[in-house]
Order: sequence, then C-alpha cells, then structure tokens
Amino acid sequence: IQNNKIKKDKQSMTFGNRGMTLEEDINASNEAYNLRGVAVIHKKPTPVQIVQVDYPSRSAAVIKEAYFKQASTTDYNGIYRGYYIDFEAKETQSKTSFPLKNFHEHQINHLRNCVTHKGICFVIIRFTAFNQVFLLPASALFQFWDAQQNGGKKSISYQDIQKNALEISYGFSPRLPYLDAVDKLILQIEESSN
Amino acid sequence: IQNNKIKKDKQSMTFGNRGMTLEEDINASNEAYNLRGVAVIHKKPTPVQIVQVDYPSRSAAVIKEAYFKQASTTDYNGIYRGYYIDFEAKETQSKTSFPLKNFHEHQINHLRNCVTHKGICFVIIRFTAFNQVFLLPASALFQFWDAQQNGGKKSISYQDIQKNALEISYGFSPRLPYLDAVDKLILQIEESSN
Ligand SMILES: [Mg+2]
Ligand SMILES: [Mg+2]
Repeated sequence: IQNNKIKKDKQSMTFGNRGMTLEEDINASNEAYNLRGVAVIHKKPTPVQIVQVDYPSRSAAVIKEAYFKQASTTDYNGIYRGYYIDFEAKETQSKTSFPLKNFHEHQINHLRNCVTHKGICFVIIRFTAFNQVFLLPASALFQFWDAQQNGGKKSISYQDIQKNALEISYGFSPRLPYLDAVDKLILQIEESSN
Repeated sequence: IQNNKIKKDKQSMTFGNRGMTLEEDINASNEAYNLRGVAVIHKKPTPVQIVQVDYPSRSAAVIKEAYFKQASTTDYNGIYRGYYIDFEAKETQSKTSFPLKNFHEHQINHLRNCVTHKGICFVIIRFTAFNQVFLLPASALFQFWDAQQNGGKKSISYQDIQKNALEISYGFSPRLPYLDAVDKLILQIEESSN
C-alpha cells in the first residue's frame, strides 16, 4: 500500500499541474495548440481603466494610476475547427460544490448570446483539492444558473459536475488537453441539433 | 456648385463620424449589433503589464505602476452568423496610401493562423482626410505584406485599397455598418473555395 501511494504521487508529480494555476495550465496548452496549428485561442487581457500616464523622455510610457474593471465577457475565446470558441476558467477550493457566485450575470448573458450565434461555449472548472478539471457545457451551466434565479441551489454540487461535465486529464503537452473534451462537446451539440 | 457643396457637408455632418475615432465608431456599432442579436464582437482590452498595485483599506485596488505591452493579436474578435470574426482597425492621415508599418509581423501571423482555421479576417482602414472607411480582406493584406517582404512597396496605395477593399458607408445605427461588407466577404470566400 505504501509503495502504491508513492507511485501514485510520483505520477501526479509527472503529469500533474506542478503548482500552476488553472490559467497558467490553459495558457501553456493554448500555446502548444497554436504552435501545432491546432487552434488559435487566447486569454483576453485583464480590462483596466487607465487614469494617468506619464511619458518620461527616452523611456516607455508609465501608467501611474489605473483601476481594475469588471470583465464584461469571458476569459478566453478563439477559433478551433472553424468553430468560434468562448469560455471561462474557474478554480474552487471547495470539495463539495462549485459556487455560482463565481459568475456575473453579464458573463452568463455573453455566453448565451454566443451560443445563440452557434459558438461552442463552456466553463473549465478545477477542483483544486482533488486536482480535477472538468469542462462543463454552457447549456448545463445555464440550467443551474436559471434554477438558482428561481430559488434553487446557489452552487453546483460536485456530483452534478461529474454527471454533466466532461473530465479533462492532465497530459504532457498540451498540459491540459481540453480540446479533446471540446471535440466530444461539438459531437453532442451536432447530434442534439439533428 | 456652392449649393451642392453645402448639401454634401450637411449630409456628412448627419451621417458622418462627428469627430469620433474609428475605434469609437466600431465599438458603438458592435454595441448596436449586440443589442439586436446580430453578432457578438468585442474590442479586446489593451494589454498592460502590471508592476505595482496598492490596496487601500475600504477602497478599490489602485494600479500604481504598469506598462503598455505590445498586442500579440488583433483589436477585435467575436462571432457572426456562426463564423469566427477577427480584425484590426487602423486610421491613417495619409491621402495617398496606407503604410504597412502599421502592422507587426505577429499580427499578420495571427491573422494567417485564423484564416487557416476558417475565420473571417480583415482590416478596417479609415482615411481620415476623406472620412472614408474600407474593409480590406486579410487575403489582400497578406499579398501586400508579402510583396513588401520581398522588396516591394512599404505601403498600400489609395488606389489599391479602392481596388481590393469594400467601402463601408456611414449610417445612423449602427454608425458603421461594417457587417454588410462582411456579408459580401463571406460570399467571396465561399465562392472561391467552391
Ligand atoms: Mg477566470
Ligand atoms: Mg487598431
């Protein structure tokens, strides 16, 4: 038993996320996908309201006062297999559920609009405690969100995530091969629209 | 003649850009398109390298030192009619040509990658002196870019823009109805791939 435990720890050290944040994992994976010509997907820059900029002579402009703005859309978008891809990435420390307060109404609305226009939309959720990553289709997210609006649960239980999401296993390169799950999602969407 | 001149000035005052920048025109148009459920296209936030942030008690975090980063992609992307849309917007004061130094190599490469994945890619160019706006397909931009790399002209002449681009006329709402030109571009791309 002791030996097995050690072996398992070594494996997760080799293929695990090595203390990277979910965003770092996704960014590295996007770079790998881009380099191989698989997909063009980028993290959008953090929106910042710039108030004051100094222009010192002979050196770069310095932003001296700025504020973080609330993002009106999602973290990532791009193109894959001719499809418009749009998603949000979220981590939770919880072992039992994913809190819906992680989303803002306008992010949900943005995803709804993209789905209407035939975009492939989802959330990538990491349960940090288990180092487990899931791709939850936007359609499932909308159901939990709408239920909450109608007095339902304020979070999605771990069991419901397991039931409704596709699990993404860590790999070597790309570190987080989430487009494998996107392939399955595209199949599901195409089948359900026939 | 005098009368005609006045009439024309009045028209361009009514439907012109009223001193707005090209980006402001496009942003307002994107908002109009989004509200009507026509398309979901957004300007990406300006990429900023944040160095120092203060967290005053009881008020919002203040960015005290940050620098502008060079954009690795383009200004705008989103979804329209199920297509991934990706474009750059540029203004020029020149009356005779559009300088290619307005682009960085990695922006051209980004557009090339998006075209490979079947994205609808282009540049919106405004000749400020004439208040004229054009949609130049990425395929045409690549030709001028590659020619320049091989010792060709460092700019695209106004005549070549007129020949290769689709002109966009100002309207009331959306102020800059550039998706009409995108419809034509999609037709051209679909016809040439058959
Ligand atoms: Mg996030
Ligand atoms: Mg621009």
